[in-house]
Amino acid sequence: MDDGTAGREAPSASVQSLARGLAVIRAFDGENPEMTLSEVARRTELSRATARRFLHTLVELGYVRTDGKNFALTARVLDLGYSYLSGLSLPEIAQPHLEKLAAAVQESTSASVLDGTDIVYVARVPTKRIMSVAISIGTRFPAYATSMGRVLLAALPVAEATERIAGEALSARTPATIVSADALTRELEKVRASGYAFIDQELEVGLRSMAVAITDGRGRTIAAINVSGHAVESTAEAFRARVAGPLRDAARAIETDLRSAKPVSNLLVSG
Amino acid sequence: MDDGTAGREAPSASVQSLARGLAVIRAFDGENPEMTLSEVARRTELSRATARRFLHTLVELGYVRTDGKNFALTARVLDLGYSYLSGLSLPEIAQPHLEKLAAAVQESTSASVLDGTDIVYVARVPTKRIMSVAISIGTRFPAYATSMGRVLLAALPVAEATERIAGEALSARTPATIVSADALTRELEKVRASGYAFIDQELEVGLRSMAVAITDGRGRTIAAINVSGHAVESTAEAFRARVAGPLRDAARAIETDLRSAKPVSNLLVSG
Repeated sequence: MDDGTAGREAPSASVQSLARGLAVIRAFDGENPEMTLSEVARRTELSRATARRFLHTLVELGYVRTDGKNFALTARVLDLGYSYLSGLSLPEIAQPHLEKLAAAVQESTSASVLDGTDIVYVARVPTKRIMSVAISIGTRFPAYATSMGRVLLAALPVAEATERIAGEALSARTPATIVSADALTRELEKVRASGYAFIDQELEVGLRSMAVAITDGRGRTIAAINVSGHAVESTAEAFRARVAGPLRDAARAIETDLRSAKPVSNLLVSG
Repeated sequence: MDDGTAGREAPSASVQSLARGLAVIRAFDGENPEMTLSEVARRTELSRATARRFLHTLVELGYVRTDGKNFALTARVLDLGYSYLSGLSLPEIAQPHLEKLAAAVQESTSASVLDGTDIVYVARVPTKRIMSVAISIGTRFPAYATSMGRVLLAALPVAEATERIAGEALSARTPATIVSADALTRELEKVRASGYAFIDQELEVGLRSMAVAITDGRGRTIAAINVSGHAVESTAEAFRARVAGPLRDAARAIETDLRSAKPVSNLLVSG
């Protein structure tokens, strides 16, 4: 494929090519797992000729397959995310502790990191389906409406947390969702004071969740873990009382293991 | 960044740019979660100038972060794999059934698809740590040494399965691993006849695993699911007897749900 012109590409062209190729991958989703060239062009706002070139490059690299008319991603795309996951020591270290925690409280447990104003799941031990949507590694939720997100926002400098909240369109996902920036700021103060965040049916009706921070050896919050359960099973108070101890114990155990592993670099701390 | 030259890029240049950008992402792994420019250049075999350009593009696109000296992937990289996962109806449909199965047999359960000669995990319900390495979505193993891999290889046309086995360097991961292509071919015949694959400590000492196929409405195998447990807990026969029924029931339940969802396209069938 290299006809010798590649060395002459302008820097901005290579930048744009990479951006466009990644946009083509991201154009595929649950609603559009399989698309024609025209559909890809429309969703990426690329010309048909450009979309065709990128699709065929991705086919050649093994990330996309085609029957000549339709295009779909292949499992190789997971290698890209795996490059990230295998570089984090957290998921591997947290997993056995999350499994023990899930067995102890008989509820689903998770770990996530902050990416801008979203949380992103990096580990999960599901015990039973608790939400209307399936959660997997890589699932995102707006940080403000989740217990782990509030722990992660509360760990930021106050001005930074306020700025991220201000940049979000706070929407009522349930009647209980906190959608006032002021109320959310007060909620983050409570999280800072108590060391945990508790969500009672703010993300989805029927769902309660409690989260605590995971800190590295220098006291920086690098992730959050939580326990989530059906609200119908107990009162909010009973859920908190039952979950708080095992949740904190799991966090301490993960932190101990993390500290005996290699030190966590600033760069690998979630932001 | 677009200075107007981008439109003039040669097709082969854009192809190469995308390939190189993806190679830079894949250069990061568990051993190298954080690298300097020189390290990235060495691992990707790119010049420093080229590696710098791609790293800075990835920083600009939010997939890489840097402190000026070191570079690391961000959680945004998971979005790429998520594009693939959310396009598969299988993981979401299988997950609750794998959870039920894990609870019933008190062992870890998984779903995977075939990618060339590897299996790639697309869903997993861990109950307790059973292997020396952590398994997450996106983890790969050579198909020949795994129960799910043998089910998926057995579902291929015989000539195709033989060719994939011939292309693999069969290595003894344990004293029990089948490393003769002929013996493996006979093993696949058994899988075809019985409808399941059983692995007794071939992938890792102490690990037993049993797998069955998941087929779509047209009888094509699109994935495999399995149950894995510690060999110490029971004899191989006891494990098979205890697991076979619930495993098949879970597969049938997943297939029923898949058929009431949208039809699975040829393109989304694993290969």
